[in-house]
Amino acid sequence: MAMSGLRTTRMIWSRGLKAPSCHLQCRPMSAMASVQQTQHRETFEPEGPRVVTDIPGPRSKQMLQDLDQIQNVGMVKFFCDYEASRGNYLVDVDGNVMLDLFTQISSLPLGYNHPAMMDVLKNPVNWSTFVNRPALGMYPPGDWAQRLRSTLLAVAPAGHQQVITMGCGSCSVENGLKAMFMKFMRVRRGGAPYTQEEMDSSLRNQLPGSPNLSVLSFSNALHGRTMGCLALTHSKWQMKVDFPALDWPIADFPNLRYPLDEFKEENRKEEERCLAMVEDLILKGDQNGMAVAGIVVESIQAEGGDQFASANFFQGLRDITNKKGIGLLMDEVQTGCGVTGKFWAHEHFNLTDSPDVVTFSKKMLTGGFYNKDSFRPQESNRIFNTWVGDPSKVILLEAVVKEMTRSNLIGQVNVTGEHLLSELKNMQARYPSILHKARGLGTFCSVDFCDTETRDNTVNKLRQRGMNTGVCGTTTLRFRPALTFLPRHVDIFMGHFDAVLADVTK
Amino acid sequence: MAMSGLRTTRMIWSRGLKAPSCHLQCRPMSAMASVQQTQHRETFEPEGPRVVTDIPGPRSKQMLQDLDQIQNVGMVKFFCDYEASRGNYLVDVDGNVMLDLFTQISSLPLGYNHPAMMDVLKNPVNWSTFVNRPALGMYPPGDWAQRLRSTLLAVAPAGHQQVITMGCGSCSVENGLKAMFMKFMRVRRGGAPYTQEEMDSSLRNQLPGSPNLSVLSFSNALHGRTMGCLALTHSKWQMKVDFPALDWPIADFPNLRYPLDEFKEENRKEEERCLAMVEDLILKGDQNGMAVAGIVVESIQAEGGDQFASANFFQGLRDITNKKGIGLLMDEVQTGCGVTGKFWAHEHFNLTDSPDVVTFSKKMLTGGFYNKDSFRPQESNRIFNTWVGDPSKVILLEAVVKEMTRSNLIGQVNVTGEHLLSELKNMQARYPSILHKARGLGTFCSVDFCDTETRDNTVNKLRQRGMNTGVCGTTTLRFRPALTFLPRHVDIFMGHFDAVLADVTK
Repeated sequence: MAMSGLRTTRMIWSRGLKAPSCHLQCRPMSAMASVQQTQHRETFEPEGPRVVTDIPGPRSKQMLQDLDQIQNVGMVKFFCDYEASRGNYLVDVDGNVMLDLFTQISSLPLGYNHPAMMDVLKNPVNWSTFVNRPALGMYPPGDWAQRLRSTLLAVAPAGHQQVITMGCGSCSVENGLKAMFMKFMRVRRGGAPYTQEEMDSSLRNQLPGSPNLSVLSFSNALHGRTMGCLALTHSKWQMKVDFPALDWPIADFPNLRYPLDEFKEENRKEEERCLAMVEDLILKGDQNGMAVAGIVVESIQAEGGDQFASANFFQGLRDITNKKGIGLLMDEVQTGCGVTGKFWAHEHFNLTDSPDVVTFSKKMLTGGFYNKDSFRPQESNRIFNTWVGDPSKVILLEAVVKEMTRSNLIGQVNVTGEHLLSELKNMQARYPSILHKARGLGTFCSVDFCDTETRDNTVNKLRQRGMNTGVCGTTTLRFRPALTFLPRHVDIFMGHFDAVLADVTK
Repeated sequence: MAMSGLRTTRMIWSRGLKAPSCHLQCRPMSAMASVQQTQHRETFEPEGPRVVTDIPGPRSKQMLQDLDQIQNVGMVKFFCDYEASRGNYLVDVDGNVMLDLFTQISSLPLGYNHPAMMDVLKNPVNWSTFVNRPALGMYPPGDWAQRLRSTLLAVAPAGHQQVITMGCGSCSVENGLKAMFMKFMRVRRGGAPYTQEEMDSSLRNQLPGSPNLSVLSFSNALHGRTMGCLALTHSKWQMKVDFPALDWPIADFPNLRYPLDEFKEENRKEEERCLAMVEDLILKGDQNGMAVAGIVVESIQAEGGDQFASANFFQGLRDITNKKGIGLLMDEVQTGCGVTGKFWAHEHFNLTDSPDVVTFSKKMLTGGFYNKDSFRPQESNRIFNTWVGDPSKVILLEAVVKEMTRSNLIGQVNVTGEHLLSELKNMQARYPSILHKARGLGTFCSVDFCDTETRDNTVNKLRQRGMNTGVCGTTTLRFRPALTFLPRHVDIFMGHFDAVLADVTK
């Protein structure tokens, strides 16, 4: 069913990427076999979207009813045929071919079924890594250090030579917090060993072993959904209400006016206000016996509505944390892996001193965090769990990192991102009653709507035209394409965006 | 290097398991090719351990130094050659072949490189599942409901038709807690919708949206290492000290005397004491405005020292939670997947009403939890994250579940477990000054030592003989073999155990 659409669509390999040998690369995907045999080697993804039903279509709707028997399906958009999907195009179970600008909540680095990743699966040498998931902290594979060097350390932020893998973004942040707590307490006790009282009381969740410490976060932030992460998360009530929460300090994240270059002075003041609030909350923590051990911040607030702050703001946070002797954790779960035009978004800030902890997940395929040497756990069994990550994700990441270098994908992100932002600004000029705040770094772009209803209406109409997009905040459309997204994809999208907006303004 | 040991070891396929066609099944593992070509099809794993160096050997030691440059390696035992490992035998990078009774902290269901799991990797149809990890909560694959039915629902505990996947054990427990909080608050507000004040205040971690609720746990428990899980964890100070903790109630877990049938009355009183403490803590929570929304308990306390409690105790917890209208979460992360001789350990308790939430991970390959219908999230986006699990783990689990049925592995666990426990009791009778408390269900067995030093000394000597074992608590040796562990493996182990204990008592 799904394949018939693809079979009749001429497929081309994205320009600007070196074409893989598809006869070899794609052969094992059985559903594609007949396509591959008759297509030129420079074919890979469809040349455009193709919509054959409403989305969700009848098969998706049937599957939704079915899955609803098993779990809450309130967030499900439609069901997918991942085997048939290719590159920037997601194919659903009804055979609709959609240009994907959201890529599984920003978690696919190279789009669907990229040959470089398929090669990992095709190679029998790699299979044992997928079937024997080790307890990495106790029994690592012989090539583990080398794998970390060829992947996570090869792309480490400046100032970082230490890295620990984790399963997901939440576990990465949770354990990054521990690295900050340990460092803070190590300094506080001046190198003295743990007392028996500390060890014993910690087992009962009591002082002094379980100290009164907090971590400062920002309004609208999202850092994950486990309890430590949730204490730092303030974007949507659905994630929070009815769950007990730690009463940790929350500073305002700068609410900047756009266009940024027209409101420089106003925005500078807003950021200074927020920094002063941070300092004040840290002081209050000291005064009320609940010291702030660290600050957690996204390089760009994503779920909270794609809120950008300036390099000055982040330098301010770095200065405050250094002055107070507390940690700075930069959460790059959504902003890492090149999407902003640098490998890590915080590299745009030219900080005088790199963040102490940098967390990652999503497009990096493995979760984990970098930490400065001084934030390394000193004792064993402090940062540990059964799996401590998954080597099968790291060998896939190795293919991604190599492909990013080979095809200069970060360079491509900059080219595509410039075109995307420029076109968003054009659309904003064309539909000033609907769109504002077009903004972005690399392809990490967004634009705000006049209201939630118009945005959601637009997103739905876009989907019916085969444009799969994501939202964040209350009025924001966010763009989270793969690193292989090209200017021609931007153009395809803008054609549909224009048509939908014209329809909406009628 | 590592392979030379295997090549000269006659390999046999474990008795009692249907032999795979190794010529076909194992062919793609390149390092094994020459072995496979000359071996009979009934070969699979080595017939015994083979030690060629100290363990850790020179290569492991070199790798340890190398990895130490990147992260704390205090828990690393040795480095492994997973491609060369087979069945119940783990091969290290120095070519030592070890019988594995710990199986990656109890997380390998079928041992190493099991043909049924390798078949999943060999099938090109499955490859796209490994390279396109979906955001399952938004864009599930078309076969998702069917996959859940053929795996997690096919083995669901009685009373459960709802299941949600997660990435790891900690995330499973964290989200299981949320299911209990939501249910508790839904009852408390009598079906009324959330107020605006609740929604708004929850974003600031404040009352009433972030209510004062707790979850009751037990001394010595381990439920994970994220902040919600850590609040319920009380087994080792290294996991806890310096990290702020929620002041939630902790009841004593029964400290039973062994042999259980000799101390029935005493143990009954001990369990009644603990149950009374639970009731008292719940009452106190009501009185001090910090209501207990649920109880979290392991079916068998594992990390805490393999502490068993009786069916009566768990029925008592079920009665108390039902009476109080609060949730009962049974944590089966380590006890699930058949290791106790039933698929879920709590099935040994014949509860009059099944637990409300049952968490799993480890041998299940995917994390997640079952929840009763009444504990299902009512609104969307309540239990959600980027990935919500990983279908590539579920297709591997499908192979595991099929193999468990095909080869009656739970039946095998009962046979092997009976032999293991009987032999442990023999050893205990033979070395009464060293061993006591031999106990177990299925192959989930353990025995305690006179002191920590003797245990650790024994574990090290066992390792030097090619027996890889695990510990828990302060004096416990725990057995966590794969489901394919056979009486002959027990015999091989006991020969070495006897020799080591004889040496220790000299």
